[in-house]
Amino acid sequence: MLVAIPLFDRFTALDAVGPYQVLSGIPGTEVRFLGPEAGPIRADNRMLTVLAEGPWEDAPRPDVLVVPGGIGTRALLKDERLLAWVREAHEHSTYTTSVCTGSLVLAAAGILDGVDASTHWMERDLLGELGACPVPDRVVERGKIVTAAGVSAGIDMALRLTELLTHADVAQAIQLGIEYDPQPPFDSGSPEKARPEIVELVRNVVDAREAEALAEVPAGRDRSAAASS
Amino acid sequence: MLVAIPLFDRFTALDAVGPYQVLSGIPGTEVRFLGPEAGPIRADNRMLTVLAEGPWEDAPRPDVLVVPGGIGTRALLKDERLLAWVREAHEHSTYTTSVCTGSLVLAAAGILDGVDASTHWMERDLLGELGACPVPDRVVERGKIVTAAGVSAGIDMALRLTELLTHADVAQAIQLGIEYDPQPPFDSGSPEKARPEIVELVRNVVDAREAEALAEVPAGRDRSAAASS
Repeated sequence: MLVAIPLFDRFTALDAVGPYQVLSGIPGTEVRFLGPEAGPIRADNRMLTVLAEGPWEDAPRPDVLVVPGGIGTRALLKDERLLAWVREAHEHSTYTTSVCTGSLVLAAAGILDGVDASTHWMERDLLGELGACPVPDRVVERGKIVTAAGVSAGIDMALRLTELLTHADVAQAIQLGIEYDPQPPFDSGSPEKARPEIVELVRNVVDAREAEALAEVPAGRDRSAAASS
Repeated sequence: MLVAIPLFDRFTALDAVGPYQVLSGIPGTEVRFLGPEAGPIRADNRMLTVLAEGPWEDAPRPDVLVVPGGIGTRALLKDERLLAWVREAHEHSTYTTSVCTGSLVLAAAGILDGVDASTHWMERDLLGELGACPVPDRVVERGKIVTAAGVSAGIDMALRLTELLTHADVAQAIQLGIEYDPQPPFDSGSPEKARPEIVELVRNVVDAREAEALAEVPAGRDRSAAASS
């Protein structure tokens, strides 16, 4: 079984590494990290660099596609090369999935038109503008399309995917292997649970980061879609 | 604030990326991934490669040290170069921390002699043999030494560290930013919660992987410590 995880400049590392850590534990599974071309890809905060082993097109027909999110997704919404690859991969995939704002990319590819989908809680409106039906659930399954909420939700999604692809026993063994018995010291992981001032704080910080990141989008790219978030 | 995450051949990616994703969200914080030298470092399953931006010694005095685990830790238990750097970093650190079998490295450096510490549930005996007092808790705080259980526990640990280093509000904001509202589809994340046959399955798979990985430890290295696990 082949799992393809497309990387791109300013992806969010945990979006990609969470599902990878789970899915790579399925016996006989290969996870491939691919990029615009082979070589280093820098994460959103510029502190982590992952090597893409080849261009996206090196995996034209993965069994599972996992599109991570990150502020870098905004520049991808009109990247016809990536969107064409996503469409082609989706046509033949067993599961087409996303984490966080990776669902914006699926939507931009036309895969989520009128389809319920999850995304990072701050980007639900943008997901709707791109044609999907935003659902505030952590993992949303609609046929072979499975989308997860922000960043860490990819771990939960990948465990469910493991069950769908193999058997609940395999998923439970992987959960035990990565000792995924979460005990967060706070209960602040969703906008419904966090205190209002924390929600406001995050909105302001993320808005500022987005503005900064979007200012760096190369001038050659169409920035209108990006600017709308 | 400088956070140093030492990488090494066959590290477990989520051990490193979980804490990175949390700690890099603290305003004014730089997270640096370092290796034996600058360049590509392959994770334990050979499917992910992260770039180390320089040698470990590039960060002689990080404020926070986060040692990830992975089968590659076994070859480090007698790596005097790494252990010397860990000792030096610990002497000046605000917090010295580990995830999963990263605590074996802290123990081998002599930092955990007689100290309560956590590790991956399968390696508690080995941690004890190295002089520490294994504790089956997810996050163990003893003064400035904070150790986490297996793989995914690094996320919980890093949120607690964020509170210790800054303020609970910052930790809660980061938790919300990464939407860490875990909803695992199974309750199989610890050996106490998983069904006995799942525990047995994981033991067998991990033992086989360890044997395979240890067979690849370069002949020039002392393999006796490794073979004892």
